[in-house]
Amino acid sequence: MELTVYLAGQIHDDWRDHLKNKANQKELPILFVGPQENHELSDNIGEKIMGAQPDNLYKDDAASDINNFRTSVLMQKSDVVIALFGEKYKQWNTAMDASTAISLSKPTIIVRPKSLIHPLKELSNKANVTVETIDQALEVIDYCFV
Amino acid sequence: MELTVYLAGQIHDDWRDHLKNKANQKELPILFVGPQENHELSDNIGEKIMGAQPDNLYKDDAASDINNFRTSVLMQKSDVVIALFGEKYKQWNTAMDASTAISLSKPTIIVRPKSLIHPLKELSNKANVTVETIDQALEVIDYCFV
Amino acid sequence: MELTVYLAGQIHDDWRDHLKNKANQKELPILFVGPQENHELSDNIGEKIMGAQPDNLYKDDAASDINNFRTSVLMQKSDVVIALFGEKYKQWNTAMDASTAISLSKPTIIVRPKSLIHPLKELSNKANVTVETIDQALEVIDYCFV
Amino acid sequence: MELTVYLAGQIHDDWRDHLKNKANQKELPILFVGPQENHELSDNIGEKIMGAQPDNLYKDDAASDINNFRTSVLMQKSDVVIALFGEKYKQWNTAMDASTAISLSKPTIIVRPKSLIHPLKELSNKANVTVETIDQALEVIDYCFV
Amino acid sequence: MELTVYLAGQIHDDWRDHLKNKANQKELPILFVGPQENHELSDNIGEKIMGAQPDNLYKDDAASDINNFRTSVLMQKSDVVIALFGEKYKQWNTAMDASTAISLSKPTIIVRPKSLIHPLKELSNKANVTVETIDQALEVIDYCFV
Amino acid sequence: MELTVYLAGQIHDDWRDHLKNKANQKELPILFVGPQENHELSDNIGEKIMGAQPDNLYKDDAASDINNFRTSVLMQKSDVVIALFGEKYKQWNTAMDASTAISLSKPTIIVRPKSLIHPLKELSNKANVTVETIDQALEVIDYCFV
Amino acid sequence: MELTVYLAGQIHDDWRDHLKNKANQKELPILFVGPQENHELSDNIGEKIMGAQPDNLYKDDAASDINNFRTSVLMQKSDVVIALFGEKYKQWNTAMDASTAISLSKPTIIVRPKSLIHPLKELSNKANVTVETIDQALEVIDYCFV
Amino acid sequence: MELTVYLAGQIHDDWRDHLKNKANQKELPILFVGPQENHELSDNIGEKIMGAQPDNLYKDDAASDINNFRTSVLMQKSDVVIALFGEKYKQWNTAMDASTAISLSKPTIIVRPKSLIHPLKELSNKANVTVETIDQALEVIDYCFV
Repeated sequence: MELTVYLAGQIHDDWRDHLKNKANQKELPILFVGPQENHELSDNIGEKIMGAQPDNLYKDDAASDINNFRTSVLMQKSDVVIALFGEKYKQWNTAMDASTAISLSKPTIIVRPKSLIHPLKELSNKANVTVETIDQALEVIDYCFV
Repeated sequence: MELTVYLAGQIHDDWRDHLKNKANQKELPILFVGPQENHELSDNIGEKIMGAQPDNLYKDDAASDINNFRTSVLMQKSDVVIALFGEKYKQWNTAMDASTAISLSKPTIIVRPKSLIHPLKELSNKANVTVETIDQALEVIDYCFV
Repeated sequence: MELTVYLAGQIHDDWRDHLKNKANQKELPILFVGPQENHELSDNIGEKIMGAQPDNLYKDDAASDINNFRTSVLMQKSDVVIALFGEKYKQWNTAMDASTAISLSKPTIIVRPKSLIHPLKELSNKANVTVETIDQALEVIDYCFV
Repeated sequence: MELTVYLAGQIHDDWRDHLKNKANQKELPILFVGPQENHELSDNIGEKIMGAQPDNLYKDDAASDINNFRTSVLMQKSDVVIALFGEKYKQWNTAMDASTAISLSKPTIIVRPKSLIHPLKELSNKANVTVETIDQALEVIDYCFV
Repeated sequence: MELTVYLAGQIHDDWRDHLKNKANQKELPILFVGPQENHELSDNIGEKIMGAQPDNLYKDDAASDINNFRTSVLMQKSDVVIALFGEKYKQWNTAMDASTAISLSKPTIIVRPKSLIHPLKELSNKANVTVETIDQALEVIDYCFV
Repeated sequence: MELTVYLAGQIHDDWRDHLKNKANQKELPILFVGPQENHELSDNIGEKIMGAQPDNLYKDDAASDINNFRTSVLMQKSDVVIALFGEKYKQWNTAMDASTAISLSKPTIIVRPKSLIHPLKELSNKANVTVETIDQALEVIDYCFV
Repeated sequence: MELTVYLAGQIHDDWRDHLKNKANQKELPILFVGPQENHELSDNIGEKIMGAQPDNLYKDDAASDINNFRTSVLMQKSDVVIALFGEKYKQWNTAMDASTAISLSKPTIIVRPKSLIHPLKELSNKANVTVETIDQALEVIDYCFV
Repeated sequence: MELTVYLAGQIHDDWRDHLKNKANQKELPILFVGPQENHELSDNIGEKIMGAQPDNLYKDDAASDINNFRTSVLMQKSDVVIALFGEKYKQWNTAMDASTAISLSKPTIIVRPKSLIHPLKELSNKANVTVETIDQALEVIDYCFV
């Protein structure tokens, strides 16, 4: 049995690589997918494909058309969603992806530091599991294969 | 035809009263529902009903059980969801409620200031309508009755 | 038993009034709903609520946000959908509304002249009933009350 | 990860071959499916299988039974739908296929020339992405693999 | 609490009146709906509304368009379905209505004589309850109000 | 706004009356429904309606046909489910009703004594809220009206 | 692309073998599944697995438990359903399987002789395609691969 | 055709190994999955991954987060569910898993001794098949391949 895991969350550091390496070492049969991690490409993909837009509102709307398309394709292929929250950034996309996954009955793990317990309490409560580190998230998935 | 409208968003000022008054003046047949607006009650409802919890994590988890129960009951009764974002607070609950509404095919309006165009671009893009003021949100609903 | 009937189709003449009058004469317990019939308002509703847009593409997109919101609210409240096709106009909205209704399992009646048999053959085939006049469509609904 | 892409739209030129060749050159792991592209076969398939029909209405209805069967089988197997609109033909089937795909939560791309912005504004607004050329549509899908 | 009950089955005698009278005597808050009971009207409704058809196949297809429309409207409004089988007639519509009701999770009661135990065994097994008389079916519904 | 609340759980004492009285005192707009509370009637309803059965297995199966029919009708009408567990009885029906409610996305409250924390831990975890007394369960529902 | 096709209908002759051979000759990538074709085994499977039952009613109910289990497993794996009706037998299982397939949105082909047009008119009308021979049914499926 | 079968029930003896060996001997193409069978690990998995919890309530809640996550992932991958009940233990998880499977339309077999006929009558009645031994359960699945 192979699992496809969607990795929702910020794209400003290499946490996904860390997770993939760990899963590799454990030889877990997991295919990881996720959002576009090239931040500049993600912000500009609308204009890159559709051409220049009148202003930033429309540039953003064009980019989000395509980013949402990508997320939709990949999340529908996924068996599990991990959503990482940290202390920086607004992370409304992460909240959106986690909520969407929960609504689609995708088993969902939230990763967040202790400092975010209070503001994330309702979302944590709806997710299947909440942990504090991505290593713990991987242990949860690993447990499905034991 | 009467509509039930869920008002997601922060509970730190009286924006819901403003909206209700406006709807009243227009004599729109709308029943408004929403989260618990008494902030202290919302934070303490877990301990109030279930008794003291070991620490803040568990206090928060108990409160969120009951707040999520309430949201679930009321949102299932709703025909439309309005989600207000502002410049203060993390508002992950608002993002969660908007995403859940969209996943449930509830027609959804996001209200956000221009300053939040970029961080909300993917969520705006999935909502049916995005406007900048709650008066505009009410005009959108009003348009359904014209 | 009362039925709510969504009337999809062009908004350039008074076919809906004709239908409503007939239903009235037959004293059928039907609430009719449908798209915004004021064409100018329908085209301008985006700019009217959200303000001026950079050009026609964006003006149209803003209007369609709100028109789609309206359709979604009203169609979800409906038990039955009637979709009228005629020889004028592109009527892609009509095709969209009929297809959406069929996908939502709303019993759907298509009204179209004989001249449109060929181009509408696949959509007619998916609808529950296809007739040639709105009077026939009303007879079909009337038959549910007999 | 492989994607199956349904190509809705007119069958009067070789736009699907153009798209397939491009995808081939990019070595994208895509299986393309779509409607019967042999127009004569598509129009006559009802009589070909079921025998002569009393007149064109019934000939068309027989053909559409089988064309709709085909579309239903193939669209259910698809992960993504591209719907091409052009300036010729009524294209109600294209509107029907795009609307059905959207209702089934299949990520959907509409391709249409600038001249069709206004009549397609509501359908474009419901699709995930709207572009002007099939090359752009392929770039959107390509972006899911990057 | 009021229940709407769809009465599927043959339309050749007055079993529905018998049931309605009994329910009336028990003062049960039930609205009964069902197929067109005027057999001639049911067979001719296609030609009556749409005009003469080329032959019996098409006459039947036109009638079934409208009969299926009616069933679909009324069954979606129903909370419970009773399906009566007897020793006469093919009753494939009854089997179709019962199966559709079961697939829609409508609580379903089958009424059939002992002589039909064997040929109805799989359908009985999927229904919630199988009884031998319509009086028993009414007792089952009555039990929901006790 | 009125809520319909299904009360799952044992039928050996008058806990439902206690709850109804309390709700009455608070003037909450709630319609309570639930299983047949006359235990003897519940066990014998199969033979009562369908006649004598060959042995207890078949007597039980006949009764459960009708009890499940009743539960299905009433739970589909409900907005909320309360499931009470106590230290006596096997209560597999209670577990079944709670699980079914959760699968149907009905907001669900489990009431269980501290002594049952361990054996109910997975079911509690899937329910929206778990409390220890039926008074607490009513407070949770009351909170939806505040 | 491979298709799994469920073959509903009587099990008293070798029509399935005929169909499989034809498909084989055409080298169509189809996996055929269907009900238990050994009639005696199908009727006795309940007692064979569960032991002797008190009488024929219970023997039949036990057999239908297991036959329905089989059908449910295999139909959920299927992309397409063919349902054959003939002039012999009551064939309520065939009507049940066809209706279930249609309710599950499985593209469905009914095969029936001209003599059954009238009694099958409503079911034919709900299926995607109705033909008169199993060879025609195979041609319809073959058309999906062309 | 391969089937994935989820084995719900107690984890205190080696009944799953017995079943797997039997299936192996029959060379059935079945992948068996199920809950964590290491009881100690199952009880401690919450603290093992998330660290020490304040008391047993929270330890249990943490463990059940992860056990429910596992069950959800594996049951969604399954085609069939077997749920074993015995005379020992409360087995509310087994009742929960069986009910969830039934609600998800997974074909479900309950295995229970004669002594449990009465307390399991409603759940048995909702399952597709009820047998008394795991060998019988395997015979039911085997019958799908014959």
